[in-house]
Amino acid sequence: MPNLSWLKGYSGTTFGRDMTAATVVTIMLIPQSLAYALLAGLPAEMGLYASILPLVAYGLIGSSRTLSVGPVAVIALMTATAVGDVARQGTVDYASAAILLALMSGIILIGLGLLRFGFVTNFLSHPVVSGFITASGILIALSQMRHIFGTDANGATLPELVGSLGASLSDFHLPTFLVGTCVLIFLWLCRGFMTSWMMMLGLSRSSAELVTKAAPVLAILATILTAMSLDFEAMGVALVGQVPRGLPALSAPHIDWVLVEALALPALLISLIGFVESVSVGRTLGAKRRQRITPDRELIGLGAANVASAFSGGFPVTGGFSRSVVNFDAGAETQAASIMAAIGIGLAALLLTPLLYFLPKATLAATIIVAVTALIDWKMLARAWRFSWADFLAVTATILLTLLLGVEVGVISGVAVSLGLHLYKTSRPHFAVVGSVAGTEKFRNVNGHNVSTHPMIISIRVDESLYFANATYLEEIVFAQVAQDQDVRHVVLMCSAVNDIDLSALEALETINVGLEELSISLHLSEIKTPVMTTLKRSDFLTHLTGQIFDTQFEAYSALQDLEFSS
Amino acid sequence: MPNLSWLKGYSGTTFGRDMTAATVVTIMLIPQSLAYALLAGLPAEMGLYASILPLVAYGLIGSSRTLSVGPVAVIALMTATAVGDVARQGTVDYASAAILLALMSGIILIGLGLLRFGFVTNFLSHPVVSGFITASGILIALSQMRHIFGTDANGATLPELVGSLGASLSDFHLPTFLVGTCVLIFLWLCRGFMTSWMMMLGLSRSSAELVTKAAPVLAILATILTAMSLDFEAMGVALVGQVPRGLPALSAPHIDWVLVEALALPALLISLIGFVESVSVGRTLGAKRRQRITPDRELIGLGAANVASAFSGGFPVTGGFSRSVVNFDAGAETQAASIMAAIGIGLAALLLTPLLYFLPKATLAATIIVAVTALIDWKMLARAWRFSWADFLAVTATILLTLLLGVEVGVISGVAVSLGLHLYKTSRPHFAVVGSVAGTEKFRNVNGHNVSTHPMIISIRVDESLYFANATYLEEIVFAQVAQDQDVRHVVLMCSAVNDIDLSALEALETINVGLEELSISLHLSEIKTPVMTTLKRSDFLTHLTGQIFDTQFEAYSALQDLEFSS
Repeated sequence: MPNLSWLKGYSGTTFGRDMTAATVVTIMLIPQSLAYALLAGLPAEMGLYASILPLVAYGLIGSSRTLSVGPVAVIALMTATAVGDVARQGTVDYASAAILLALMSGIILIGLGLLRFGFVTNFLSHPVVSGFITASGILIALSQMRHIFGTDANGATLPELVGSLGASLSDFHLPTFLVGTCVLIFLWLCRGFMTSWMMMLGLSRSSAELVTKAAPVLAILATILTAMSLDFEAMGVALVGQVPRGLPALSAPHIDWVLVEALALPALLISLIGFVESVSVGRTLGAKRRQRITPDRELIGLGAANVASAFSGGFPVTGGFSRSVVNFDAGAETQAASIMAAIGIGLAALLLTPLLYFLPKATLAATIIVAVTALIDWKMLARAWRFSWADFLAVTATILLTLLLGVEVGVISGVAVSLGLHLYKTSRPHFAVVGSVAGTEKFRNVNGHNVSTHPMIISIRVDESLYFANATYLEEIVFAQVAQDQDVRHVVLMCSAVNDIDLSALEALETINVGLEELSISLHLSEIKTPVMTTLKRSDFLTHLTGQIFDTQFEAYSALQDLEFSS
Repeated sequence: MPNLSWLKGYSGTTFGRDMTAATVVTIMLIPQSLAYALLAGLPAEMGLYASILPLVAYGLIGSSRTLSVGPVAVIALMTATAVGDVARQGTVDYASAAILLALMSGIILIGLGLLRFGFVTNFLSHPVVSGFITASGILIALSQMRHIFGTDANGATLPELVGSLGASLSDFHLPTFLVGTCVLIFLWLCRGFMTSWMMMLGLSRSSAELVTKAAPVLAILATILTAMSLDFEAMGVALVGQVPRGLPALSAPHIDWVLVEALALPALLISLIGFVESVSVGRTLGAKRRQRITPDRELIGLGAANVASAFSGGFPVTGGFSRSVVNFDAGAETQAASIMAAIGIGLAALLLTPLLYFLPKATLAATIIVAVTALIDWKMLARAWRFSWADFLAVTATILLTLLLGVEVGVISGVAVSLGLHLYKTSRPHFAVVGSVAGTEKFRNVNGHNVSTHPMIISIRVDESLYFANATYLEEIVFAQVAQDQDVRHVVLMCSAVNDIDLSALEALETINVGLEELSISLHLSEIKTPVMTTLKRSDFLTHLTGQIFDTQFEAYSALQDLEFSS
């Protein structure tokens, strides 16, 4: 089962590169892990725990060599929403529900992988995923504003968050606000200018970009030191506080079946969204080095990572975009980089936790806000608007429904909307009555082309595979055409664009065949593709067909013209 | 709004034909109305009420000239299931919930019609509808067995019905069973032989077939007379009993919002299933006379019929298959036939109700059982099995889930399964690496055809529209092909089978373009259809494309060969 192909030919050079990448990723992962634990409403140490064993589990099983697994923003938000529905934040039940959620996600992912059901994520279209992530980014940023304002606000939707934040403003805490704002400004400045500063100091562009990613660590160190020296605790600035020192204890998650039922749908959604995010990162990075990732193995790898997270006191994890890119850019060559990063985080859990006592929550909130603003992609809206109304509707609906009704309803509605639109589009496919282009064997739409037709022959080209969603429309098209014209003796369906046919469409063809027969019209087919012909031969339709099958539309038209001329 | 086009040129001949058809349909509708009221768990008179005003409403608005609207078996079963969940059979609440259900179905249908949302019924594939009707037929027949056994059994699923029927056998009532069995045998004999007997008596085939349809009326008359003479009531045979005499009182349905919420989903499903059944009958009959039906107007017509049913104490109705065929075969030419049949049923309600007192319920149950066995279509299973695994899976899943979990879950799961299978099939479309057929401009699959290829050029033909469900698969295909071959400099995507492209697929193409560029491979497209090209031009993809657009695959292959030869 483990995928250790990368061990073959593992050399000192590879080790060096993996080690460098692991160091960079560890430095980046520490603040991220703490921040996303905060976002999920969990104690800071759970963020660290979710970044140790899951990395090892994925490294041993997953198929991407450079994917970096751990807590990510959107999944942390979905965890907060799901667990917030079944337990109160800050309680033991809340933490154990998050652990159970990781276990369930892991089992779902492994199950999907073993059943080779990776294809289900194809139902999540780009506009839906993009809209969902944009809306999640907004919800995440808003949910963190309370830590910047030093107030107590909550909510899972835009109206709830805005309302609760507004109501809580009376508790506004200036010192906290100053800390949060300073960090925000610092991080934004770093993002905007740090790479060029570093390059002016003589670093290469790629090194400068890597150093820029360490800005949150600088902010954390700086605010910890300030908090210690200025005694933020006495001022009432919320700090992370006591974080247990040491590695996570391994223990089997407690399984409460009532909770399992309540968390089933969220666990499924977290699995799917996490997988889509992770696999798209993995595929993008893999393509750069001609390495392929195997979706079904990815499911099992991510599932194992989540199970490992559950057994070591973590919460749901997946492959993160920004940190995988850092891992890749820092030179990681194999999964060993992930495993070494896990060791790095483990050392941090052993050695650095006392320092975290003084870390202001506002600092973590600021790093989250800056990170998630990168997720918000308004350009997608403009792009979809220009490209097609259906994609625009899908992205808009997903954004609005996620903002207004929360992440779970949002993503489900987005999928439903995009499926509905796809079916709507294919249920009324483009079709054309075609005529012969003089002097050629070509046939073109009678509207817009100078073509000749025969009064007794109607040739119809349907530009879509025939299946249940457009089967009745096909009947309507054909009968509408013959209803207009009493002279017609032959209908030719030109099937050059028909890639597939299902039983509903076959029955529509039979209805058309019988219906035309009652009007003394023959039905002919032309240009049927080989796989479609194979399918048709499995029924008795061809034996009942009143007309003929022609290889080309030209043959059909010529033969039927001759037939009508001679009769 | 009313559709009275048929009044134009209405003549004495037409009136005569409509009158004949109306008489035949009235005779057939009386037992059907009573039986389906029994099936829905409602008093017999509600069946008559549902066959008066709804026929008039549909006649004035609907677009089919020969559709006969009224209670039908599957909708009556769905009504029993839905109403049985919110009220106890036999109570006033039960009847008023059925009336409310008719009102809600009517409003939903009118709403869908006004929004031109008739296309949503396209989501119900033939295998799903056929499987659903087969399973419903089985459930209906089983649900009526208690009236034949004279026992008290109930249930909404196969296990419930079988269990309840088995448990109730201790109350088995022999006289009732004898009545039921005699009627069953009589009806089966009539169905098998009556047409030939009548033809031997000198009737034409079509008249003989019409007389055969009147067999239930004979059974009803015979059992009423027997019940009166042998005093079935004293023997304990369940009779229809007191039926209020007269026309239905017009009154606005009572609207209970808690009930509205509980009945919302069943009302939607009843509307959709009823519409699908009705529109397929209307379309089949219309095609025989070159008459078209307008789906959106049909929605409004059926909606009006249900609203009329609700205001006159009826229950949900739709266009019935058997009775519409009778109407058509008996020579109905316009909607006037329906309106006259309504008058016929009205007269029956005024004059015949005292007779119904003595009608054994077992007689009605037997007519239902014989009618619904015609709905059970096992051949569909064999047909689907031969035709395609996906259609077989859809029909099997729908039958099993409907039998085991009931009509509502059954139809929803059936739709979900068929949508899922469609997406699964199109998510892994057929594709082929193609090569040039020597001496022609044709390109064929390199597997199975004798074609020539160039080591630096890979040509891939994808036989499916490109959309979100197969966008990632497209990436996988392309990168898998180039990963196998280090010499490749050009990838040509042959788009002759691509009827449409959405934003997800566009992004996949962009990913492919960028990914190939990093491997120093150019991406070219050939044979793009005009509508797809129009769509592509709305994005900036073509400006970033590393390669070229070619009209034909032959041009692409020639040009790239020349390019590589000269370089």
